[in-house]
Amino acid sequence: MNKILAGLRIVEGAAFVAAPLCGMSLAQQGADVIRFDPIEGGLDARRWPVTREGRSLYWAGLNKGKRSIAVNTRSPEGQELICGLITAPGEGNGIYLTNFPTSGWLGYDTLCKRRDDLIMMNVTGNPDGSSAVDYTLNCAVGLPFVTGPEHGGQAVNPVNHVLPAWDAIAGVTAAMGILAAERHRRLTGQGQYIKLPLADVAFAMMGNLGYVAEVQLNGEERRSCGNYLYGAYGCEFETRDTRYVYVVAITKRQWQELCETTGLGEKLETIEQLLGVDLAKEGDRFKAREAISAVLRPWFRARSLAEVRRTFDGTGVCWGPYQTFRQMVEQDARCSVQNPLFSHIDQPGIGSFLVPGSPLQFSAEVRVAPRRAPLLGEHTDQVLSEVLGLSEGQIGKLREQKVVAGPMDFR
Amino acid sequence: MNKILAGLRIVEGAAFVAAPLCGMSLAQQGADVIRFDPIEGGLDARRWPVTREGRSLYWAGLNKGKRSIAVNTRSPEGQELICGLITAPGEGNGIYLTNFPTSGWLGYDTLCKRRDDLIMMNVTGNPDGSSAVDYTLNCAVGLPFVTGPEHGGQAVNPVNHVLPAWDAIAGVTAAMGILAAERHRRLTGQGQYIKLPLADVAFAMMGNLGYVAEVQLNGEERRSCGNYLYGAYGCEFETRDTRYVYVVAITKRQWQELCETTGLGEKLETIEQLLGVDLAKEGDRFKAREAISAVLRPWFRARSLAEVRRTFDGTGVCWGPYQTFRQMVEQDARCSVQNPLFSHIDQPGIGSFLVPGSPLQFSAEVRVAPRRAPLLGEHTDQVLSEVLGLSEGQIGKLREQKVVAGPMDFR
Repeated sequence: MNKILAGLRIVEGAAFVAAPLCGMSLAQQGADVIRFDPIEGGLDARRWPVTREGRSLYWAGLNKGKRSIAVNTRSPEGQELICGLITAPGEGNGIYLTNFPTSGWLGYDTLCKRRDDLIMMNVTGNPDGSSAVDYTLNCAVGLPFVTGPEHGGQAVNPVNHVLPAWDAIAGVTAAMGILAAERHRRLTGQGQYIKLPLADVAFAMMGNLGYVAEVQLNGEERRSCGNYLYGAYGCEFETRDTRYVYVVAITKRQWQELCETTGLGEKLETIEQLLGVDLAKEGDRFKAREAISAVLRPWFRARSLAEVRRTFDGTGVCWGPYQTFRQMVEQDARCSVQNPLFSHIDQPGIGSFLVPGSPLQFSAEVRVAPRRAPLLGEHTDQVLSEVLGLSEGQIGKLREQKVVAGPMDFR
Repeated sequence: MNKILAGLRIVEGAAFVAAPLCGMSLAQQGADVIRFDPIEGGLDARRWPVTREGRSLYWAGLNKGKRSIAVNTRSPEGQELICGLITAPGEGNGIYLTNFPTSGWLGYDTLCKRRDDLIMMNVTGNPDGSSAVDYTLNCAVGLPFVTGPEHGGQAVNPVNHVLPAWDAIAGVTAAMGILAAERHRRLTGQGQYIKLPLADVAFAMMGNLGYVAEVQLNGEERRSCGNYLYGAYGCEFETRDTRYVYVVAITKRQWQELCETTGLGEKLETIEQLLGVDLAKEGDRFKAREAISAVLRPWFRARSLAEVRRTFDGTGVCWGPYQTFRQMVEQDARCSVQNPLFSHIDQPGIGSFLVPGSPLQFSAEVRVAPRRAPLLGEHTDQVLSEVLGLSEGQIGKLREQKVVAGPMDFR
């Protein structure tokens, strides 16, 4: 958490990963992000992972630092409140982030009638507006056929990614887009509608990384190469104590250090003649990957992870151990309060756990502890009073009429 | 491409994926991004994928829309030029993006002596400054042990991701951070040093997505569940013509549509009694995933991909086909010039291929065709003249002394 975006207010009507991650990224930099949800909770209110008591760790994870208002979004009065929040006057207001349908009362043109310099960020599925989620896009971009054990050029045994990478990239891209639009508004006074199709995030990245060009220019597709690092040298090894490590030699220096530190430089050099390659070149290291691994493998099998660590630490060898989630949490200092990224935060109804802030460290803004996620509707009264200027009496009436509610604990 | 960031200039000294992707993301929104490299090309100048002639598609993909200046960065004269570029006066100047070591002549404090409101974005490996790359971080966050075929809770057979997801997320995060810092400078006049450790990007996201909390609060780790979508229903199916599709039912509506469209609603309902679950709940659909798949599988096996498509199109079923890279490029309209995201661009020495612009569509800025990547040093003279105000004679002398060069074609 920091305060570099203090003064910005984003109203978020969203669910799932990409758009809530966008809002959270901005909240963790000090923007006031107000998420609105139906009184019974939104589509993702109970999303897994959950605690044993059924409380959503997903909600806790992706709504940190936001304020929450619970509103009956089907009632005209509730809709009026939301529109009022979105189009509230003031320089830092008037930013709406959503992945909901944007027709009717939440349409851009409708909202613009109340604030003509509105910035609206709409994260959609496909560019034509049809639905697409991370999982139905990831299968479309070719990667599952080259993930997992090598199986030549056959399009069989697809392996999905587990990290919703497209959602994650899209969430941060949306945050970048909002800041670009806010800069534009600050300079010109002009608001705008911004569309970010999740599909375009995925296809653009596949183009950026050369997969599209490879098919078109080389007339061939990238083939599966297992856990090898494409285009340079990278391989996983098992240690004597049945741990795994990954070792990388992308740069020439990383390669030289690996040769020196393992003492296998001379042996590895013989591969050059054997296969007619120049191992100083990253592409040639990729071509010779199996021979290189054959030479290195016994070295790792003869050593424990601790021995490997002692040998490599402080050298220029680029490597890391494979860890389970538990090993990551229990043994890796980078995923602990030893790293200022993390704090222990108490989440009501859930308990205390390690919570990350923003990975961005701004020297002009002191890093402050991450803030927890709100309960559903935790800030209903506060937001109605502070942003819309409603009186206690008016808020009481809205509560009586069940137009607003909260805080609540949805299970 | 668009022009929403017109007026910003970023000087980029970087290599590999994350930092160059940051620069490109800003360039594709109209910022003037000047990448400097040594005269012989930087560490990633020849990076794979390459064309048959050995030209880097990687360079072409991650440097689109930038200008390139080739400088002997070891000579005092070359260093002076780079420092002059980074600290050039003017409101939109004074932004330096790097993943290089930042000691000595490229240190923040050194550069600040020439421009005290400098913004410097430094993408590093580990928070302590030690090296880490996407591949040595991905193995540390636990995901490879739950990717690929199910194998219970054993930490065996790690499967790496192929998409450098952490690099991609970090690149966009860095761009977001630069825009946040530029807003801060615009409001306060204050520049700053921003550090973004790739490791923190990865560990923060693992925290955001609940993996850390699961270990700490539930005392257990997420287990491998193959291609199933964790916490809701999602599964891959083979069709009659040996294609694969992925089908998702995260929301209740998606589930209802799947039941109705396949005509298997009644059969699927019997699973509720069979397993004691409520399939209207996403978590219960996850628990009953194997039974659901057993019912659905024959339906897909009896139909071709075209038949599946005809049945699902226009309904609320959330699904998509698995595609190879070639199928993505040759059969998917979203990855073609039918999608305004893409244009055919001619890249000198490489040829014409499909090039994506920014996935962000700003209504206030007309979308313009993506710009190609520069040749190494293609803009050396232009940048020296335009930004540093050097005369033709001065530039000629620098060329003679081999302080600068280009354009060149590195193979």
